[in-house]
Amino acid sequence: MTASDLAYVPFVDVEEMMHLVLDIGLETCLADLTAYIEEDFRRWPLFDKTPRVASHSRDGVIELMPTSDGREYAFKYVNGHPANMKKGLQTVTAFGLLADVESGYPVLLSEMTILTALRTGATSALATRILARPGSQTLAMIGNGAQSEFQALALKTVCGVTALRLFDTDPEATRKCMANLADSGLAVTICNSAEEAVQGADIVTTCTADKQIATVLHDNMIGAGVHINAIGGDCPGKTELQSDILNRADVFVEYPPQTRIEGEIQQMAPDFPVTELWEVLSGAAEGRRDSRQITLFDGVGFAIEDFSALRWLRDQVVRLDRGQRLDMIADPDDPRDLFGMIERERHRRAAA
Amino acid sequence: MTASDLAYVPFVDVEEMMHLVLDIGLETCLADLTAYIEEDFRRWPLFDKTPRVASHSRDGVIELMPTSDGREYAFKYVNGHPANMKKGLQTVTAFGLLADVESGYPVLLSEMTILTALRTGATSALATRILARPGSQTLAMIGNGAQSEFQALALKTVCGVTALRLFDTDPEATRKCMANLADSGLAVTICNSAEEAVQGADIVTTCTADKQIATVLHDNMIGAGVHINAIGGDCPGKTELQSDILNRADVFVEYPPQTRIEGEIQQMAPDFPVTELWEVLSGAAEGRRDSRQITLFDGVGFAIEDFSALRWLRDQVVRLDRGQRLDMIADPDDPRDLFGMIERERHRRAAA
Repeated sequence: MTASDLAYVPFVDVEEMMHLVLDIGLETCLADLTAYIEEDFRRWPLFDKTPRVASHSRDGVIELMPTSDGREYAFKYVNGHPANMKKGLQTVTAFGLLADVESGYPVLLSEMTILTALRTGATSALATRILARPGSQTLAMIGNGAQSEFQALALKTVCGVTALRLFDTDPEATRKCMANLADSGLAVTICNSAEEAVQGADIVTTCTADKQIATVLHDNMIGAGVHINAIGGDCPGKTELQSDILNRADVFVEYPPQTRIEGEIQQMAPDFPVTELWEVLSGAAEGRRDSRQITLFDGVGFAIEDFSALRWLRDQVVRLDRGQRLDMIADPDDPRDLFGMIERERHRRAAA
Repeated sequence: MTASDLAYVPFVDVEEMMHLVLDIGLETCLADLTAYIEEDFRRWPLFDKTPRVASHSRDGVIELMPTSDGREYAFKYVNGHPANMKKGLQTVTAFGLLADVESGYPVLLSEMTILTALRTGATSALATRILARPGSQTLAMIGNGAQSEFQALALKTVCGVTALRLFDTDPEATRKCMANLADSGLAVTICNSAEEAVQGADIVTTCTADKQIATVLHDNMIGAGVHINAIGGDCPGKTELQSDILNRADVFVEYPPQTRIEGEIQQMAPDFPVTELWEVLSGAAEGRRDSRQITLFDGVGFAIEDFSALRWLRDQVVRLDRGQRLDMIADPDDPRDLFGMIERERHRRAAA
């Protein structure tokens, strides 16, 4: 690549992301993303891990989530504004960037609202594949909002889930989820309560959205051998599980310093024992020991998953020759002559 | 604005930035930017100030610089890769984003290589206007690289500088700077040494580029009453001034926690006395006391200046109806139905 090529940054906008997903196939995307995330989790110690940089306000939070493996660098911009929904705005919007560490030049800018939905589903699928009982087929989904279909399809594709039991306090959300999954091949059952939804489920995923302590899973609802993905408890002051479940379960997390602040385990003592998911992949820690154990993935979303997602997307953009090219990096003929670049533009205009 | 309007983020690319600068006029841009920066410095305590988030590698650094005044939020992505120049790449490239704190939605994405050059000149101009002796007219510029013309023009426009004395260890850089300023109205003198350049200068600006301790100003070169802008010493391990000068001068800085790491005063004890520039503006601290005092602005570039620059640019984009609109934020009809947005796109494609 020449310097001038590098001055143009490939950009995937929302429409292009939808087309990429449809062209590749949503389930293939979820399976491939799971593989990219697994690959990066397997080389976890290589990554530069910093907590999110958060700017809190009365109405929400704006965060930057950077990480790097020494060869590539990624960050995601993401906001969380619960009151946005009432105004018809997205609660969470996101975009992200991948850059080359050697030169510092950006190599991909992308919308990340859709991409984050995909990677969140893929991360749950990875955790479930590792931790759920072999042969798990029935998934109970408590919370049928924007993330629910991605969770369901990722677990279908990656973990072999065939049956889905839905519950949401808002029946409209459940109807929407069911309609969206009508052609998915999943056998979908609508339930009237969380208690009903978890009956016979091998896997329970909670992904409710309110920013408050809302206990959607009580201890007596969880039987032996179940795997839980707790996705919705993902910021300070927001949890979904009764603490008794945490005491009965073996808890697996992405990055403890972040999860202890944002995850379900914010309810527990600072030394509450957890296992890092990457250690199960590397063989350094044990995953599921037996068929009666309750395993719990306390997922909050970590920068490395966004890194994996951007890396996957960059590979698709290159492979399929997609995306716009943004003129984002000033590229004077002589790097010391930024001023002259403007002056030459002045002369071009005067001559035209 | 509707939700759909908000889903499109105004974007100023490199070419659009050049056209904006040429349409508004470079000197007007520098003067206006100085006013925006001054306005934000005057309300300094309002801002959320965090140190940069830096990711260091063998070849350089990638940084995120966020800040917020509670109403708007800005961050800049900027890299510093000294070896890039040999490959024909920019040593520093940058882009930035302005967002609305209430909704978390981005309101402007922009190239910031040119914009940073402008705001760096404007910040020096602000410091010089406050600190230099009244009637200062002659500027010595040591280091005639990419930043030099912006410094010269900003000080001409904002501070009334009329004469410029140039020196660089590379005569080619000086010739470039002189040629670029041929029509500026400044009386330019090329000098054969830094010693020669500072003779008769009221103001001395150092902006050399090498990432190393390179003493370009020695104590015996600085006479009574001079104001110095030390711009090039802006990262750990990079300084331009002999420490004796720092001891003789009164030192003014942007944000002490950052300047003590990155600025000229990294050479000094951690409690070396400095005055914050914003305090001089607010009247809380004294600026120049007398005509024999040496004043030194140890500028490293702070996030609030980028915030001011993005705020200024956003106002120009609105006023002049400029910029592209990037489809960066997913905008489903129902915020809970991100999946349905993709499905509806599938149906549109199938029907087409």
